[in-house]
Amino acid sequence: MIPGPTNVPWRVLQAMARPIANHRGEEFHRLYNEIQEGLKYAFRTKGDVLPLTASGTGAAECAISNFVNEGSKVLIPVNGEFAERIATSVERVGGKPVRMEIPYGKAPTTELVKQAIDLNKGIDSFFLVHNETSTGVTSRDLKEMAGLCRREGILVVVDAISDLCGEEIENDDWGVNVCFTASQKCLAAPPGLSLISVDEGAWKRVEERKAESRSFYFDLARIRKYHERSEIPFTPAVPLFYALSEALKLLKEEGYETRLERHRTCGQALYSALDALGLEAYPMDVRYRSNTVLVLKVPEGIDNSRLRGYMKEKHGVVISDGMGKLRGLTFRIGCMGIVSRREITLTLTALEGALRIQGWRIEAGKAAAALESTFDR
Amino acid sequence: MIPGPTNVPWRVLQAMARPIANHRGEEFHRLYNEIQEGLKYAFRTKGDVLPLTASGTGAAECAISNFVNEGSKVLIPVNGEFAERIATSVERVGGKPVRMEIPYGKAPTTELVKQAIDLNKGIDSFFLVHNETSTGVTSRDLKEMAGLCRREGILVVVDAISDLCGEEIENDDWGVNVCFTASQKCLAAPPGLSLISVDEGAWKRVEERKAESRSFYFDLARIRKYHERSEIPFTPAVPLFYALSEALKLLKEEGYETRLERHRTCGQALYSALDALGLEAYPMDVRYRSNTVLVLKVPEGIDNSRLRGYMKEKHGVVISDGMGKLRGLTFRIGCMGIVSRREITLTLTALEGALRIQGWRIEAGKAAAALESTFDR
Repeated sequence: MIPGPTNVPWRVLQAMARPIANHRGEEFHRLYNEIQEGLKYAFRTKGDVLPLTASGTGAAECAISNFVNEGSKVLIPVNGEFAERIATSVERVGGKPVRMEIPYGKAPTTELVKQAIDLNKGIDSFFLVHNETSTGVTSRDLKEMAGLCRREGILVVVDAISDLCGEEIENDDWGVNVCFTASQKCLAAPPGLSLISVDEGAWKRVEERKAESRSFYFDLARIRKYHERSEIPFTPAVPLFYALSEALKLLKEEGYETRLERHRTCGQALYSALDALGLEAYPMDVRYRSNTVLVLKVPEGIDNSRLRGYMKEKHGVVISDGMGKLRGLTFRIGCMGIVSRREITLTLTALEGALRIQGWRIEAGKAAAALESTFDR
Repeated sequence: MIPGPTNVPWRVLQAMARPIANHRGEEFHRLYNEIQEGLKYAFRTKGDVLPLTASGTGAAECAISNFVNEGSKVLIPVNGEFAERIATSVERVGGKPVRMEIPYGKAPTTELVKQAIDLNKGIDSFFLVHNETSTGVTSRDLKEMAGLCRREGILVVVDAISDLCGEEIENDDWGVNVCFTASQKCLAAPPGLSLISVDEGAWKRVEERKAESRSFYFDLARIRKYHERSEIPFTPAVPLFYALSEALKLLKEEGYETRLERHRTCGQALYSALDALGLEAYPMDVRYRSNTVLVLKVPEGIDNSRLRGYMKEKHGVVISDGMGKLRGLTFRIGCMGIVSRREITLTLTALEGALRIQGWRIEAGKAAAALESTFDR
């Protein structure tokens, strides 16, 4: 129950134990096309979705090294560790990040984005971390923000690493130009691949770019050429492609809407149970609380690592420490991929036990009842 | 029999079908340390060997973005497609490639490297593609070149993607500072990981670097910090780590020297058989012919794609077209990983058949006899 890698279904794991196809042959072409179709479904786009042999941070680097030119201004709401990293990476390739400092635990609003655009002339692109894995905040106003940016001619790039297919993101309908995620989150495939969607507007930027991408490995112009023949410029992680293909079939079988709803129900059930236990979510505003990564404050008198240690040893349930500035002060529960009532129930039981042995006062049955009432609603 | 991905033993494939370990937990730490030990053995080094979730080109990009600074002069013998790519990538990060143009099919000599160093003052680093997968040439004078560079204070970086553990490379003994390879070649693991060794001299360069690495994903300073606690900054491709660990166990069981000898015998047997068939290797000088990637000229009157098509359809033996400038003009046979007399024999039979149906005159039994005599020597 960490915020990724998440549990991978046996069907998906088994898919990897197959001889490695030649990545320049027909068998791979078929696999690539199958995956392409599944990714379009997951990304809610008719555009291209490119698989990269790299983890999510690699996809962020791909977006940055292709869409940020020397000196170009990039608007970035900074409300967590991952947004910080994007700002840093933008600087490294010679771009100028315009940082919108948002208190950790809060989400940027469309109004704030509008102000920032008015105040800083010549913004070239807008990079948003849709779900901040470090704070448990989902930026639920993406639709409006994207609309605003599009009207201003600003490219919209969305980091949806920890919530694509877990929270609603309608890339084409909302006008998102570029969106990326990683295989090991809500898609429930093993880690090692990331996926990046590029729409027509974004391809135009690639075509009009004066300098070549700083990165050769992540150069979208080159990747596009191979994409057109269902290949990848460099040797892909073939077993992970087998697994992703299977994971996308599972997504199709379940249905996109059902998967979103399942994440919502599991997330909301867990929040209500944690509330009944007297725990406090790190994000204050209920509207922006992530359903895929739950970040909880460690209450006074509770030892964070002892709490997690007990859950792991006695119940086999692994959750994570806080991250970056929030390390030690929070713990994080991943609620993504193939989570169901079963996993949520086990997690709650483990957490309740871990709190109890540290003297936390718990009203018997209250949290479980909160869980039940959400699931049976 | 393509030049990678190569055949992966069943034991290694099976290792992937296991639940994904938490990459911040003890189970992963143990796995990481096991792999570290195996990699030191494979790389012939006491230094650090860092696994990257990226294919071989990603490792090249890692080396370039960490060891090439704005304006720094990089000496590169250019004798094939992969050396060309390195020169291009050096330019992209703002470095100045000093290109030693070597005719395709030939290897750079120590004398030429010496001349280039004398002619171009202030060379900062030397990047050598040890085994050119596009031409089938192994730069067998690395030991002398590395010694020369070290005496001049030039950093030695070696691309051993297609021959580490297939051709002799003694990194520590020869004074190579940085060396990288990919998982799917002579290590016979699935594709998707690359490995880069960094010795003390190279770490010093990282420490003394004024600007940060252009790449965030491949930033060695950050990777080193996590390496010290047996972790990786970004989510690693865990199943590929399971597989690599198993592949390294197989290497240890076989023994480094035996693996080199096996590659040598298989390569030499195949060359002698191909010679008996009247085929010509692309590299002229016997001394520099690669044992891991055999590049053969397509003889007049023979249709390259029909040849490869027949081998695949009738014998299930897949070989590759030529690459880059040599596409169409050559074909390539990979001889790496878990190759043995069995695979070489099957390949020869398939190739002989493919030539025969196109009217190539073959003296019955001659090639097979050449093969036998090498194996039974």
